[in-house]
Amino acid sequence: MSEAAVPSRRRELTRQRLLDAAQQVFAESGFDAASVEDVCERAGFTRGAFYSNFESKEGLFLALVDRVSGERLDAVRRRISTLERSGDFVPASGQGSAMRVVQQVLDVSGDDRLGVLLMSEIRVHALRQKELAAAYLALEESMCESVAQIIGDVAKSQKMALRLPLKDVARTILSVWESEAIRGAMQGLGFDEMRGIGGERIAQLAELFIVPPTR
Amino acid sequence: MSEAAVPSRRRELTRQRLLDAAQQVFAESGFDAASVEDVCERAGFTRGAFYSNFESKEGLFLALVDRVSGERLDAVRRRISTLERSGDFVPASGQGSAMRVVQQVLDVSGDDRLGVLLMSEIRVHALRQKELAAAYLALEESMCESVAQIIGDVAKSQKMALRLPLKDVARTILSVWESEAIRGAMQGLGFDEMRGIGGERIAQLAELFIVPPTR
Repeated sequence: MSEAAVPSRRRELTRQRLLDAAQQVFAESGFDAASVEDVCERAGFTRGAFYSNFESKEGLFLALVDRVSGERLDAVRRRISTLERSGDFVPASGQGSAMRVVQQVLDVSGDDRLGVLLMSEIRVHALRQKELAAAYLALEESMCESVAQIIGDVAKSQKMALRLPLKDVARTILSVWESEAIRGAMQGLGFDEMRGIGGERIAQLAELFIVPPTR
Repeated sequence: MSEAAVPSRRRELTRQRLLDAAQQVFAESGFDAASVEDVCERAGFTRGAFYSNFESKEGLFLALVDRVSGERLDAVRRRISTLERSGDFVPASGQGSAMRVVQQVLDVSGDDRLGVLLMSEIRVHALRQKELAAAYLALEESMCESVAQIIGDVAKSQKMALRLPLKDVARTILSVWESEAIRGAMQGLGFDEMRGIGGERIAQLAELFIVPPTR
């Protein structure tokens, strides 16, 4: 390990602890009421440490959105790789197979309530602040690319052809998933129920996106 | 006109003036900073007049979302009825026809920036307040039913069959339209550009939703 790697690892730990604290403070107080001071106090760091990691409160919460959505995408990727290694992937041909593929892929645990709230609150601020809007759009674009890559990999390994460009499939799925997650959170649904409903809607669309196999 | 109709009409006028004032105050200050006092002062009414029309600030802004989205839906309905009366509706058969139908139907003027901001801000509050959530979900459901009815009418008059239940088509289109409207607002696009991009995405989906005509 190079000498430079040590401070960089410490820096990463500080960053992660600030994000952990931000997640707790946000869940308790919401975006508006949460202050940089609260986050620093919770994490046990000075404001100096904070500002050497994040530009602003908005920057901190954008990084938190990035981390939360990254964790969700990683869980989906791990699930797919387990399915592929074990050979348990349902082959995607024939009626109803898209539904089974989607259900298998989304069979990950988690709780999206915090993610939904974070996304929604940061979006409202981005709609009113130009600089934050640019950062939000970049983050959304990168989420969309990650989802497109996951769908592309599954489509390739399952020999499925898609009726729309990968990016448009990904964007549609993200929009529908988020609407369902918001509706689920408002209805007070647990993650499993929410995932069930969201999964059904996505599978229904997936059936339309996939070119049926020729026989 | 019955005697009871006069106060009821005056009441409706008061309500509309309060909503006009709320729209201005919201556009200037945002949901959080806007107060019932500001809205009353702008409209020239007392707090008593306000509370005989709305339960709370949240109730006022929900009613405003309802009015803004109702106006948009009415514009689309008028556009469709004009197209049908004039016989200018492009027949929805053959490649690319869904795109032309969607473009024709969405060819209405307007500015969605205020609607996007309103929807986004009220949603954040509904995610944190149970009573508001119920009202928000009811409003969303009624918007979805209106869109489903519009799509159903167009499908019937154009003799199109759909691959998904009407309600699911409507829900998907609403989700995609809102995502595009939010992205457009953040990119600082004007309504025409935003409608162009949103229309393309919806038309792309419409091609998938419509059962191709058998020859």
